[in-house]
Amino acid sequence: MANYVLVHGAWHTGAELQVVASLIRAMGHDVYTPTIKGNRPGDAKTVGLSEAIESIVEYLEETGIEDAILVGHSSGGMVITGVADRVRHRIRRLVYWNAYVPNDGESIQDMTAPHQVALFEAIAAERNDGTVVLPFPVWREAFINDADLETAQKAYDTLNPQPMQSFRDKISLSTNPAAMEIGKSYINCTDDTVSPHSHPWHPRLSEKLGLFRLIQIPGSHEISFTHPDRIARAIVEAGRD
Amino acid sequence: MANYVLVHGAWHTGAELQVVASLIRAMGHDVYTPTIKGNRPGDAKTVGLSEAIESIVEYLEETGIEDAILVGHSSGGMVITGVADRVRHRIRRLVYWNAYVPNDGESIQDMTAPHQVALFEAIAAERNDGTVVLPFPVWREAFINDADLETAQKAYDTLNPQPMQSFRDKISLSTNPAAMEIGKSYINCTDDTVSPHSHPWHPRLSEKLGLFRLIQIPGSHEISFTHPDRIARAIVEAGRD
Amino acid sequence: MANYVLVHGAWHTGAELQVVASLIRAMGHDVYTPTIKGNRPGDAKTVGLSEAIESIVEYLEETGIEDAILVGHSSGGMVITGVADRVRHRIRRLVYWNAYVPNDGESIQDMTAPHQVALFEAIAAERNDGTVVLPFPVWREAFINDADLETAQKAYDTLNPQPMQSFRDKISLSTNPAAMEIGKSYINCTDDTVSPHSHPWHPRLSEKLGLFRLIQIPGSHEISFTHPDRIARAIVEAGRD
Repeated sequence: MANYVLVHGAWHTGAELQVVASLIRAMGHDVYTPTIKGNRPGDAKTVGLSEAIESIVEYLEETGIEDAILVGHSSGGMVITGVADRVRHRIRRLVYWNAYVPNDGESIQDMTAPHQVALFEAIAAERNDGTVVLPFPVWREAFINDADLETAQKAYDTLNPQPMQSFRDKISLSTNPAAMEIGKSYINCTDDTVSPHSHPWHPRLSEKLGLFRLIQIPGSHEISFTHPDRIARAIVEAGRD
Repeated sequence: MANYVLVHGAWHTGAELQVVASLIRAMGHDVYTPTIKGNRPGDAKTVGLSEAIESIVEYLEETGIEDAILVGHSSGGMVITGVADRVRHRIRRLVYWNAYVPNDGESIQDMTAPHQVALFEAIAAERNDGTVVLPFPVWREAFINDADLETAQKAYDTLNPQPMQSFRDKISLSTNPAAMEIGKSYINCTDDTVSPHSHPWHPRLSEKLGLFRLIQIPGSHEISFTHPDRIARAIVEAGRD
Repeated sequence: MANYVLVHGAWHTGAELQVVASLIRAMGHDVYTPTIKGNRPGDAKTVGLSEAIESIVEYLEETGIEDAILVGHSSGGMVITGVADRVRHRIRRLVYWNAYVPNDGESIQDMTAPHQVALFEAIAAERNDGTVVLPFPVWREAFINDADLETAQKAYDTLNPQPMQSFRDKISLSTNPAAMEIGKSYINCTDDTVSPHSHPWHPRLSEKLGLFRLIQIPGSHEISFTHPDRIARAIVEAGRD
């Protein structure tokens, strides 16, 4: 039995990971699905990266979790890296799931394809409330390409505006991921085009982990909505010793 | 219910897509399988790219198809791009299936690996009748690598000589695919080595579509002979809204 | 019915391929699993590449095998290339399975990522007995990432120290693989990160074969321990005419 802590990506909350969490629980594990500060109902949308990281550190400390398999999806990769740097003693293994892998001083925008940085900044500028949202066509075609339209629409309706500052902030780390003496895995959903395949999640970002375990499955970035069973199994194969 | 129009690649006719068409029909759709001018029995083998495109435009106009999901396999990607540029009002979505994606002024040869251009030109020069054919070993190893020998041979026997000019002609487009305001999908059969993986179909050509939906499945370039059920499902997942 | 000769990789012997061999036999074929000189119990660990190649040439000659489908896994790719160069008349097809493909004058180290060359040389220097071994964490994460811990440990316990010289020796060939007039296939286990995916087995090494048949399956470098049925089927699909 292991302790899985699933850290969602931008625009999401822990609630959308409940189906995946239930499937991992059915395999005999404890599973936690905190929501990052800035994505909880009522949160100020000015939350930056360090506050986001701190909110998960606090969650681990308040719940007293030890030996955690800390799983980060997408921008959640920034958060789990920062958490591991601050409370390494609570972590057994880091699992990145089509996630950003930062070195000290890097931001999400630094690792994102230029045309997407431009798109997100343009949307944020137009909204002018500190947040960015995804246009539905981008969501439907590039994030959840393996869904039918109804599933894509329902999943879209669960999203919340993302604090733009969390994309711009450069992370501060005492140790880069490759040098962290801890187990590390990378789950690559092979149909995920959120990061274009000419500028891919894997191996461009995964290999920043140094020695790591690769787990690959078919599926889009939003596989938790389309094939929750498949990603649940992958998380356990990535997280086991 | 949608209207699928399947446009075959070089050396083929619509007849070879009948099994796939039947499987898509069984999912509740209408399916059309025209043969491009130059590949029909008795056609002059001097047909160039614009005549090939025009023959499919005429097919759509004669049959009165609207809201078409226009699917192009391999060199059929040139044809569907040209058709969409001419009769956009008839098209709902373009689906490229391990297919060429041209911008204005590009030919198939411009997007083909140099050693293959050289091979095809050498064969055409030797035949000296305006056509190119595939040597069986190239077909068996690089086109239909997932077949047994009997299937490979039977499929080879259905091929017809391809007008070489259709590979050389540069397409004339008023709008490049990325700028076409229309749904776009790319099906990538991941074992397809017709375009060598160092010079791949996806993402090299697919990303010329701008925002597009990726659907990937295992299989060779000639998956319509080896796994027709798999490509039929992929076409519907690529073609739906 | 065909004659499959399976040539293991570094640290292994033919014994670890028995399960795969049995599965191929059950499909109606003859299967041979020789052990390369240097990996047999009691062998001197000073064996270099030419002795390794010669030991398989001798095996083929002593057993009188003709029309062999010669399959090389990993460093076994060096051996089968050398064998084919010396006794081409005994070989029907070469099958590389996440294997090195050398041209004349190349060594394993020439085709290995620099950080791995450095790791292996450092381990060999420390051991100072002419051999190199794999640290368990490297084995568990990068070689057998698709196993559970118990399978990973059991498989690790079967390994034997590898003569380091076999990694350093440059092969001598009269004909490079692309020019060999013989069938050639490459099996790519897509989750194999022994060669990092930024410096991959396929297409970086596979395309040195010239015209070849690609067979891809999910699985790690050590799939013979984790999914022997899957690699057995792939070997037959790669090896058939």
